[in-house]
Amino acid sequence: MITLAIAADHAGFPLKQKLMNLDEYLWDDHGTHSTDPTDYPILARSIIPEVLSNRCAFGVLICGTGIGMSIAANRYKGIRAALCFNSEMAYLARTHNDANILVLGARTISDDVAVECLKTFATTSFEEGRHLGRIHLLDIY
Amino acid sequence: MITLAIAADHAGFPLKQKLMNLDEYLWDDHGTHSTDPTDYPILARSIIPEVLSNRCAFGVLICGTGIGMSIAANRYKGIRAALCFNSEMAYLARTHNDANILVLGARTISDDVAVECLKTFATTSFEEGRHLGRIHLLDIY
Repeated sequence: MITLAIAADHAGFPLKQKLMNLDEYLWDDHGTHSTDPTDYPILARSIIPEVLSNRCAFGVLICGTGIGMSIAANRYKGIRAALCFNSEMAYLARTHNDANILVLGARTISDDVAVECLKTFATTSFEEGRHLGRIHLLDIY
Repeated sequence: MITLAIAADHAGFPLKQKLMNLDEYLWDDHGTHSTDPTDYPILARSIIPEVLSNRCAFGVLICGTGIGMSIAANRYKGIRAALCFNSEMAYLARTHNDANILVLGARTISDDVAVECLKTFATTSFEEGRHLGRIHLLDIY
């Protein structure tokens, strides 16, 4: 069973709790733990070491739109955080971008679509090939 | 009239050409200039100095899903690149995240939705308030 690091701000908290009901994964929950206001950059940062060290198979970040979490996480070399709004995007995020964090917008997609994105992300492998050189270029800047 | 820096990979090239037909903006076109394969990280990088120096009002980046461009651009301090799939997201990207690059997925949204996103992004201001502290936190990592 794979372990997933997860964090959400107050807007993403309810969806985080729903995803953590999926018992086919082990969850490493970095908060937040209520709908009280929080700062998404701090929550995003909390899972970065888990993902970069491979202690978790991948990370999941949730805020209202996913935009704030996506900016915050992609500041880090080696992180490839993909904001997805359907399972086709989750598939392409893994096959083309070797994404290691799935970012979801709790206020922009339904809970069912979020679950589909997660399941697709978790079961799809990187294609390598022509995409490998582009992944390397992401960390030369 | 505001100037927008724009770049796209081969998948985003056709949409880039369509957006550049909108004559209410001046366009600073950083390529690509055909559908021949290109590397999105290099195209993303090309507009960063234009955005950070404020030589352009904001930037527009396009690839197949927007995911690669979003990862690449958000590597840079001061850049807040927002992958949007409808005009509500473009509105929130500006009001909440003070986004300075609009990222679009040419293969995931229609050309009409892309135009709506651009027009909303261009006419919406940052709300500041509670969002200001979070924006500052994005660049402390």
